[in-house]
Amino acid sequence: MSDTSLDVLCIGNAIVDVIAATDDAFLAAEGLDKGAMRLIDADEATRLYGRMGPGREISGGSAGNTAAGLAMLGAKAGFVGQVADDQLGEVYRHDISSIGIEFTTPVQQGGIPTARSLVLVTPDAQRTMNTFLGAAQNLTVDALDEDQVRRARIVYLEGYLWDPETPRAAMEQAIDIARAAGNKVAFTLSDSFCVERHRDGFNALIDSGRLDILFANEAEIVSLTGEADFEAAVAAAAKRVPLLIVTRGEHGAVAVSGEERAQVPAEPVETVVDTTGAGDLFAAGFLAGLSQQRPLRDSLQMGAIAAAEVISHYGARPEADLKALVDAKLG
Amino acid sequence: MSDTSLDVLCIGNAIVDVIAATDDAFLAAEGLDKGAMRLIDADEATRLYGRMGPGREISGGSAGNTAAGLAMLGAKAGFVGQVADDQLGEVYRHDISSIGIEFTTPVQQGGIPTARSLVLVTPDAQRTMNTFLGAAQNLTVDALDEDQVRRARIVYLEGYLWDPETPRAAMEQAIDIARAAGNKVAFTLSDSFCVERHRDGFNALIDSGRLDILFANEAEIVSLTGEADFEAAVAAAAKRVPLLIVTRGEHGAVAVSGEERAQVPAEPVETVVDTTGAGDLFAAGFLAGLSQQRPLRDSLQMGAIAAAEVISHYGARPEADLKALVDAKLG
Repeated sequence: MSDTSLDVLCIGNAIVDVIAATDDAFLAAEGLDKGAMRLIDADEATRLYGRMGPGREISGGSAGNTAAGLAMLGAKAGFVGQVADDQLGEVYRHDISSIGIEFTTPVQQGGIPTARSLVLVTPDAQRTMNTFLGAAQNLTVDALDEDQVRRARIVYLEGYLWDPETPRAAMEQAIDIARAAGNKVAFTLSDSFCVERHRDGFNALIDSGRLDILFANEAEIVSLTGEADFEAAVAAAAKRVPLLIVTRGEHGAVAVSGEERAQVPAEPVETVVDTTGAGDLFAAGFLAGLSQQRPLRDSLQMGAIAAAEVISHYGARPEADLKALVDAKLG
Repeated sequence: MSDTSLDVLCIGNAIVDVIAATDDAFLAAEGLDKGAMRLIDADEATRLYGRMGPGREISGGSAGNTAAGLAMLGAKAGFVGQVADDQLGEVYRHDISSIGIEFTTPVQQGGIPTARSLVLVTPDAQRTMNTFLGAAQNLTVDALDEDQVRRARIVYLEGYLWDPETPRAAMEQAIDIARAAGNKVAFTLSDSFCVERHRDGFNALIDSGRLDILFANEAEIVSLTGEADFEAAVAAAAKRVPLLIVTRGEHGAVAVSGEERAQVPAEPVETVVDTTGAGDLFAAGFLAGLSQQRPLRDSLQMGAIAAAEVISHYGARPEADLKALVDAKLG
């Protein structure tokens, strides 16, 4: 009998990124917070798209990017997310399936189109995301395949999924199924503005004891805990979750599990082009290491290697052979 | 009264490129001729897309790429091409309009989708294109705006447009309108396989005396003329058209106009990533120079600069500030 288990099942918003170069003046004129993700409606998506420059379309979505990184690192990954029956939905399905990710969420017919995020990249490589959630916000509990969730040793969820109510319910359901099956649940806080929108909900989720692994960056963990500085925030959060991973951009990353603490510096990058997907790929590298039973420090380093690759080019999906990069460094 | 004239009106297939990295083994397994463009139908597009890796979608199409280069070099450019009422059509319209190109061809409702080209890029940066013409092959004579054609000092046509009959008729009509208005007609042979398909038609078009400017690369001009080598092919073709421009990849380019001959070496490129669009952008740079009344040699150099930019990254539309690159070199 073949092993049908998955190392990680990622659940998130299925989004095609529309990436355009811009400058600080454009962000200022549009009143956009650099580095943040904001949700926009169809009218605003049309208006902003009309004002921005030529784009390139590359599949994205936080958990989808993580699934892509996992697959490219040799892990068995699955993805759950909602696309529509349109060209961008076809693009999304192609891109995620073509790298061996199990993606079986039924397509949604008619109506609201596949989600897209207008990603504005400034010369400092920061990305400012304007996301029209479209079909992604219609991911229902019914779209979950309970057997698939049970087959996954880790279920990984993005905080962005908390924004619309329908997928939030699907996420809660996936957590319950995973826990009942004795599998682990991982969660990322996604974005500091997302934490501001849902601080109470996120804190309640963590303190319900249903999360095994929590991913955050510096701004998110400080915002979540309300602590004054990084170390205090890490110390406070680490007490509330079995395994905490916090990334600090160019300052590397730290993992805390009970009394154990590991940290790594960032991997050097020749030219940082577009920071979109850095956190997603860090999570991919870390979870791939964890799936291979590697020690915390090595898993962090795999995260750093994957993040460094994705910020060296436009788009949030890896282009180089991540596995070869990891093998060259860690063997 | 404002000047509504255009420097160049480009007419061609409106195509979104779907660009994926691949290797020689994949091309061999699929029986594909490296470096060529072949036309495929909807079934083959679906089949090949299902086998190729994750892609990035970037607006393309030969004459559309040339229009993009012209606009970015400060020329007043227009584009004529047929897209459908779908997401890729919306992407195409956005990208070409957002850089200031006049694009008023009415959208085609329902039915056949916007054209896409599955562009497979090997590690040697060669691109192999598999084009589903979709809506582009339905560009009709009626879609032409006669006044717009008359307003253009140069009408630029791609040889690829000769493949389907409907746009071929539109192209013939555009040539007649332009000539009647006393404007110039430029034509590119596009691809050596395209020359093989239409050698008689292309030779008849040239010998009808209706072309003022002919663009070709080495393989195309040799194939067109049936001469044994490059110099003989250039000499033979130059007698038949007022201005001939032939590109030779890393060996530079040559222009011949009557007794005048100019040539330039290729511009140095740090890393050649994807050669898609090299000829299109060479034509853009050359025509921009011509529109500015620059000498042949300077116009060739503008072509070389634009081509060098576009082969240094994925996609056939310029990303860097072409005007600044030209100003730095030519002033």
